[in-house]
Amino acid sequence: MIIDSHAHVMLPPERHIELMAEAHIDQTILFTTMVHPETTKGLKELETELNQLYEILNGVRDPLRERIHALEELAQIVGANPDKYIGFGSIPFGLSYKENLGWIEKYVVGNGFRGIGELTPGTGQVPQMDALFRAVQEVGSLPLWVHTFFPLKLEDIKALLDLARQYPTVPVIIGHLGGIHWLDTLQAAKEIPNVYLDLSATFTTLAPSLAIRELPERTLFSSDAPYASPLIAKMILEHLTTDNYVLEQVLGGNIAKLLQLAG
Amino acid sequence: MIIDSHAHVMLPPERHIELMAEAHIDQTILFTTMVHPETTKGLKELETELNQLYEILNGVRDPLRERIHALEELAQIVGANPDKYIGFGSIPFGLSYKENLGWIEKYVVGNGFRGIGELTPGTGQVPQMDALFRAVQEVGSLPLWVHTFFPLKLEDIKALLDLARQYPTVPVIIGHLGGIHWLDTLQAAKEIPNVYLDLSATFTTLAPSLAIRELPERTLFSSDAPYASPLIAKMILEHLTTDNYVLEQVLGGNIAKLLQLAG
Repeated sequence: MIIDSHAHVMLPPERHIELMAEAHIDQTILFTTMVHPETTKGLKELETELNQLYEILNGVRDPLRERIHALEELAQIVGANPDKYIGFGSIPFGLSYKENLGWIEKYVVGNGFRGIGELTPGTGQVPQMDALFRAVQEVGSLPLWVHTFFPLKLEDIKALLDLARQYPTVPVIIGHLGGIHWLDTLQAAKEIPNVYLDLSATFTTLAPSLAIRELPERTLFSSDAPYASPLIAKMILEHLTTDNYVLEQVLGGNIAKLLQLAG
Repeated sequence: MIIDSHAHVMLPPERHIELMAEAHIDQTILFTTMVHPETTKGLKELETELNQLYEILNGVRDPLRERIHALEELAQIVGANPDKYIGFGSIPFGLSYKENLGWIEKYVVGNGFRGIGELTPGTGQVPQMDALFRAVQEVGSLPLWVHTFFPLKLEDIKALLDLARQYPTVPVIIGHLGGIHWLDTLQAAKEIPNVYLDLSATFTTLAPSLAIRELPERTLFSSDAPYASPLIAKMILEHLTTDNYVLEQVLGGNIAKLLQLAG
């Protein structure tokens, strides 16, 4: 079973199913989106769309109505293809413990989603996630997926790993493997059993290559589509790993085990 | 003719030839190195090696004796395989106009190298490259290859593009396509005919995909080996481009034309 463990809603939805078929991907863990770079025409439109994305990644923008709309859109797309998709529900940043519990109940568990994310704390904001970790610990069994590429700094990633240490029953998926801080992240992750490494946004093949070697049971294939092609993301890992058993785990087995999916 | 337009000396040298054969790469533009991540064993050794690399990239470290040794090593490896390799010679940062001319004469032209780089200005240091641009304009026909991923900022890349505008006869290769600033870099590059975009270190396939579409005659395939696998770097471009003519130019034609290589 090949599972793309992180991709965003793309338009039109049929196109995503085509991309999965082309890459021989059985299932995709689907995340909401508030921007659609894949539908833009020309550089100018793309720039407008990506600027909105960067405002979200920088914690400048967190529009509630658009977030709820994106969750409804996700629930609809997952519901239309329950064999192809598993949903992860997004959550506003900086809620209190009770607000987090309420949101998770209504928008995550209520929609049958299996995890929470993509979380995009701005730099310096990670400690505010303590209330969310407490709520997730209370609910149980929902992995948290956190973006750790630009604009996050090493201090932010360290703060996130500290939270993972404090809440050992909360699985934390480190999105994009720590970005430019992949080696520090990998070294720290070895000592924190509830930390998983997402292998998308690879700018050097040294990073996924070493991550898989060091943590074959906690590294997760993902495309981060539409930001990368599912076919190419999968091919990269197929060319990095010669051990077929390990490759199977990274391409699907590890995330299936984490989410307790039926085999 | 498939040409990997940017890779570093790897040890043992035979391994590089094997990687080229595996990827069906005919020639590689080879650059010096002062670090060898490919020979490390384990995460700790790799960390030591990469920390040295980051000190060089941050402009903290610029050891003259090691640089000269690396140039001699490069000349030796290129000389041993003149059909496989073309050399680009590195240069210390911040030399005067006359010192630049002297260095280029002795270590670049003197070794039969065909370009200059990899230049790694620290953030804020790009304007110091004016004397180098003047010297290269004087010598003629030597492209400058500049690293523009982390730790360079958008202001640094803008300063570099300003220099490219001021010296229109100096070809400037923007290494790694501007990194996280790839879209701004691409938009600016469209208006500066002497700017070329290196397609290595791709963390999102949107970047090379759009770069090739917008600048099919000024985008250059490269692996940046040992930081990425030549086979994977080539495969990524093959999967992004459906136009065979464009693909041929990007995979070798464009750099061959820039360096006036015999067909």
